[in-house]
Amino acid sequence: MPTSLHLLLPWAAKPLITNAPMGFFAGGSLAAAVTSAGGMGFIGAVYDMAALDRELSKAASALSTSPNFENSRTKEGLLPVGVGFLPFAVKVEDALPVIEKWRPHSVWLFAAREHSDYTAWAERIRATTEGKTLVWIQTGSVSAGVEVARLVHPDVLVLQGSDAGGHGFEKGAGIISLLPEAADALADAGFGDIPLVAAGGIAEARGVAAALALGAQGVVMGTRFLASKEAIMPHPVYQEAILETLDGGQSTVRTKLFDNLSGPNVWPEAYDGRGVVTQTWRDHVNGMSLEEIRKLHKEAEGREDKGYGLNGRVTMWAGTGVGLVREVKGAGEVAAGVREEARRVVEGLRTGI
Amino acid sequence: MPTSLHLLLPWAAKPLITNAPMGFFAGGSLAAAVTSAGGMGFIGAVYDMAALDRELSKAASALSTSPNFENSRTKEGLLPVGVGFLPFAVKVEDALPVIEKWRPHSVWLFAAREHSDYTAWAERIRATTEGKTLVWIQTGSVSAGVEVARLVHPDVLVLQGSDAGGHGFEKGAGIISLLPEAADALADAGFGDIPLVAAGGIAEARGVAAALALGAQGVVMGTRFLASKEAIMPHPVYQEAILETLDGGQSTVRTKLFDNLSGPNVWPEAYDGRGVVTQTWRDHVNGMSLEEIRKLHKEAEGREDKGYGLNGRVTMWAGTGVGLVREVKGAGEVAAGVREEARRVVEGLRTGI
Repeated sequence: MPTSLHLLLPWAAKPLITNAPMGFFAGGSLAAAVTSAGGMGFIGAVYDMAALDRELSKAASALSTSPNFENSRTKEGLLPVGVGFLPFAVKVEDALPVIEKWRPHSVWLFAAREHSDYTAWAERIRATTEGKTLVWIQTGSVSAGVEVARLVHPDVLVLQGSDAGGHGFEKGAGIISLLPEAADALADAGFGDIPLVAAGGIAEARGVAAALALGAQGVVMGTRFLASKEAIMPHPVYQEAILETLDGGQSTVRTKLFDNLSGPNVWPEAYDGRGVVTQTWRDHVNGMSLEEIRKLHKEAEGREDKGYGLNGRVTMWAGTGVGLVREVKGAGEVAAGVREEARRVVEGLRTGI
Repeated sequence: MPTSLHLLLPWAAKPLITNAPMGFFAGGSLAAAVTSAGGMGFIGAVYDMAALDRELSKAASALSTSPNFENSRTKEGLLPVGVGFLPFAVKVEDALPVIEKWRPHSVWLFAAREHSDYTAWAERIRATTEGKTLVWIQTGSVSAGVEVARLVHPDVLVLQGSDAGGHGFEKGAGIISLLPEAADALADAGFGDIPLVAAGGIAEARGVAAALALGAQGVVMGTRFLASKEAIMPHPVYQEAILETLDGGQSTVRTKLFDNLSGPNVWPEAYDGRGVVTQTWRDHVNGMSLEEIRKLHKEAEGREDKGYGLNGRVTMWAGTGVGLVREVKGAGEVAAGVREEARRVVEGLRTGI
């Protein structure tokens, strides 16, 4: 049986709602709002540790008034938010000081070049906060999940399906089959104790209830939190585009092109990303050269709207759930509202059988 | 509120389990077994109406001993199985005589070149059996679902996600977001009465429970029924490969290549298909010309194993749920077993919240 997430996150209500650690979009205010609402808030993965420090400071400040924590700390003295890191892009040595200073409750690792990089990161993190900081690892296949379990035994394993927005495995299944197959394979390999969290295509309560049915204890929502008041937006047009985009499977696309617009793709080979179909993508499909696409992209970035918008050229990451995202609310209201509605969906299911 | 499928299929138990109308693989024995087990059995779409007639005859014969039906007929005098048709490949004039002769309970339409072709088919079918034969239409996007509802108002709308095996929309979401977004859009457009059935990536009980949470009243399973005793297999190696294939998101691929192996692709532009990764696909990725791929494919077809198998070259259709398919059982046992287990999953969910 998987360890109950409730034991690992005693302030959190069931089912666990987590925001994706979206680099640059999910800052300290967003993470604190999700945690305060009984979820698990994450600060997104960035490259600049000074910027991360500022976001952690914001989270601590926002949590200082929360009645659930004493001086914004858990009983173990941890800051009850998580922090995302991209092992392929950041050196663990650079990350450790900020972890040591802030003692975040959780660290979320994603997109290591080699699985053994996760091992190195997990060991260093665990050594830094006496094993108290939980290690979450997100991956996107059954075999990767089992290998990560064997190498790192993460406290939480996030399984990301192909519907997810932003970066993920170029090739993969949706959570409809990924979750149950991975759960079985992990149990067979002796790792049935690791709690699973589902990511990819979940934007509201029905998706949450489905994820629970598939074997997850909690869910990650990314796109839905892009439409929160606390999301850090490069331009309002981006958020408006998220609200306007419908039919998520048709209006988004997974491609490596988005990582090639500002220069060579720095992401590990197995990864690409899903975003809203933009003029950049349409030009690519119509055969425009990468050189010309890059030139037009650079020009668009210089416009007042920074190139965002449905007719724009600059990437707007979003998952297939984008068509279910219709309004901007506070992140805490999103987390609590989706959670409560998911409970109603589960209750209602019994009448359907 | 959607019409209850229970009203449309009075012999069926909740939640409804349906086999995909897999051309050549799902014959009369499979369809009858699924119906007899309280599900909805479909005979797959084929090009030869004489072959279809033979499969319908098999179904009628198998159902003649079923205590749920009098002389293998429903109260309305229909044969309680469904038949799949591909409007792009078969003329409605050729299909009507077999529909008139056998009066199947349901017809499943999929892959029309234009949505208006569904309208023509539905009208002719409804005229042939006095509106008694139900029209099911399967499609793969929110906008297509709404358009089909507007044009045809099918009795059942099947929403197929990107995890599905065999043919489907080249581009699309998994059911995790497709189902809830389509359900909302259909309700907003005044078609909330149409019952929804989910297809794509569902191979066992957890996927069924998830589909119910997402707003479906029933599910379609394809790959799972390939591993049934009644499935018509071109060679035993195909079925063995289905059982052996793991990590469905990695070991299957969606591509138009599979439709180009025996000559020009005859499928409508929006469609491709998902199958197990074969040597054909690996050669394609490594840059082999289509001409050479076709030559090797043709040679492989002439071998004893007809070119099937994990190191083979001939296409083995399968969805991402293939890794969850571990054994061959009778199709009725599959339908009833998955249904009962799904009920247990739903009951168990309540403890998770």
